[in-house]
Amino acid sequence: MKILAFGGSFRKGSFSKIVLKETKYLLPSDVDIKIFDIKGISFFNQDLEQNLPENVVKFKLEIKNADAILIVTPEYNYSIPGFLKNAIDWASRPISDNSFNEKPVAIISSSTGMFGGSRAQYHLRQSFVFLNSYVLNKPEVMIPFVDQKIYNNRLKDEKTKEKIKEILKALSRFALEIKKMKNKA
Amino acid sequence: MKILAFGGSFRKGSFSKIVLKETKYLLPSDVDIKIFDIKGISFFNQDLEQNLPENVVKFKLEIKNADAILIVTPEYNYSIPGFLKNAIDWASRPISDNSFNEKPVAIISSSTGMFGGSRAQYHLRQSFVFLNSYVLNKPEVMIPFVDQKIYNNRLKDEKTKEKIKEILKALSRFALEIKKMKNKA
Amino acid sequence: MKILAFGGSFRKGSFSKIVLKETKYLLPSDVDIKIFDIKGISFFNQDLEQNLPENVVKFKLEIKNADAILIVTPEYNYSIPGFLKNAIDWASRPISDNSFNEKPVAIISSSTGMFGGSRAQYHLRQSFVFLNSYVLNKPEVMIPFVDQKIYNNRLKDEKTKEKIKEILKALSRFALEIKKMKNKA
Amino acid sequence: MKILAFGGSFRKGSFSKIVLKETKYLLPSDVDIKIFDIKGISFFNQDLEQNLPENVVKFKLEIKNADAILIVTPEYNYSIPGFLKNAIDWASRPISDNSFNEKPVAIISSSTGMFGGSRAQYHLRQSFVFLNSYVLNKPEVMIPFVDQKIYNNRLKDEKTKEKIKEILKALSRFALEIKKMKNKA
Repeated sequence: MKILAFGGSFRKGSFSKIVLKETKYLLPSDVDIKIFDIKGISFFNQDLEQNLPENVVKFKLEIKNADAILIVTPEYNYSIPGFLKNAIDWASRPISDNSFNEKPVAIISSSTGMFGGSRAQYHLRQSFVFLNSYVLNKPEVMIPFVDQKIYNNRLKDEKTKEKIKEILKALSRFALEIKKMKNKA
Repeated sequence: MKILAFGGSFRKGSFSKIVLKETKYLLPSDVDIKIFDIKGISFFNQDLEQNLPENVVKFKLEIKNADAILIVTPEYNYSIPGFLKNAIDWASRPISDNSFNEKPVAIISSSTGMFGGSRAQYHLRQSFVFLNSYVLNKPEVMIPFVDQKIYNNRLKDEKTKEKIKEILKALSRFALEIKKMKNKA
Repeated sequence: MKILAFGGSFRKGSFSKIVLKETKYLLPSDVDIKIFDIKGISFFNQDLEQNLPENVVKFKLEIKNADAILIVTPEYNYSIPGFLKNAIDWASRPISDNSFNEKPVAIISSSTGMFGGSRAQYHLRQSFVFLNSYVLNKPEVMIPFVDQKIYNNRLKDEKTKEKIKEILKALSRFALEIKKMKNKA
Repeated sequence: MKILAFGGSFRKGSFSKIVLKETKYLLPSDVDIKIFDIKGISFFNQDLEQNLPENVVKFKLEIKNADAILIVTPEYNYSIPGFLKNAIDWASRPISDNSFNEKPVAIISSSTGMFGGSRAQYHLRQSFVFLNSYVLNKPEVMIPFVDQKIYNNRLKDEKTKEKIKEILKALSRFALEIKKMKNKA
């Protein structure tokens, strides 16, 4: 079982990037996670669809090779950060080769405010309707006051870590069932 | 009365960019419009907030000098395109200097499908709640089948042009009233 | 394979009710559909949770006995009609006995306008995240200008009927897979 | 300056109803608030549009006579409660006599959970785009853990009461400016 994870903001010391990295230590025993750095992905331009930038090709390949996708995101202006949406826009193109098609997806969001990025999550969910992905319903993991839960570049809040363990477990199971479903079809 | 307009996708021959440019010919007589090219704006990175990239500084200044904002956007994956959200994310920062604060805003969307980008509009509206802007309610301009309304890089559909005239007129009036309101305060 | 369907508005000659009834003629051969009339359901009141109204008990039972749920809805004020949301609110309670939990759900919307009720659909989808249902992604069936597609109280538009056939087929398959998944678990 | 307020759930001891009633004690000195009980409003039925139920007529009249509207709502299933949406659906009809047209509106939500009903608020905001109302941006008042802030049927949390004072003040000012705007037009 392989999960491809991406997200986080671009600044050094990004809280959501720290959360993203922490997932490595919170996995079920039979699950691998690979973190893809979306920072190198350029702005989407449809003129390049027939000749995709190299790191977009790589990103799409990693998504396809994964059994499940994990997105860890901050919230900007009550919605998805531009850079994250941009990476998703690229991976969805060309539309005949939408990399998210029928992929199991889970979302974790965090913010320094009290709502933990929930608004970004619901906007992401709407995108994944178009992209025809299977987005995990429960548990929803929204991490409020994330800055107070990080010390020395590590996530230190036990309750939050428990929740991340739960979502990773649920995503793995969900992906396994979807895999079986596809194998039979 | 000065409107600052931005948006459109990055490909050559972008339909929404053509719509954006067409607004110049559809203005009330006492209104000026300036189109800002967001293509040169880099990815948002909070580490640069104290030392903003030059074109972000320029973008923020143009927004502040304008009496109203017009956004023309395609829809990507049932939401806001990444590059557009990214430009908005930059202009909103640092949060103590959010350029959209109390600005009148109107949105036009277009798509080659039948819904004209409406889903991107509602997500944008949610961002502008956080950004404390005044977003025009009516008319809502969503241009479906935009590809069939463009010839020789010009918008040729009279009904669509009428609607754009209406929204520009409504935005101007709205901006005028808000200006008076602020002057009194 | 049994589908429970509900929705439609309360007026005589309701277009969405006609669409709802038409589904009976558009089913795959091995699928049954039962239409539940939500008109008799009273307003939700938490004080009655321990002593549910009789038709709420019946509604919840029908949902539980079904393999899949189909909702057919108009759009009111860019969102879910109050009476439909009210029926869903009842069926979700008490929360320890949420009838929609893990149910496959498909949504059809219609409107006399050009967008076919799409905005109501996305709001419904958000509710079903909380309710932990499996909402079908594709096809999305949004019926614009529904009034022009109905004659003598029957849906007469062939293209629309094809789409409804597709969604019923997709829902049946989806429900079958989810059933297998649960049996194994 | 007259505010018409409505909302709250239908159960006895409803937390949101207690919040609604508390607004009476938190008003600016020159502002009156009237609470309208939506509990008596029947389900929307378009067949009755030409012959509106008596309490709908009354509700519409109260809205029209008010300078501003305040809605206090719980969140059900990540969206607007059915009974509240139903009352709004009625007041918007017939569409040529939409009572919310150009009305200043503020929203307060509460929940026993940690997000204070924010999801219901954004869905409401989308409805008010169609209804062409002016919805206040700031402050956003979402009351989490509302059950812990109520004793003896009164709201006892000082911080929450301060926020409600702020939103009532902001709504009054906003309504005053909109009134002036209309008088000039």
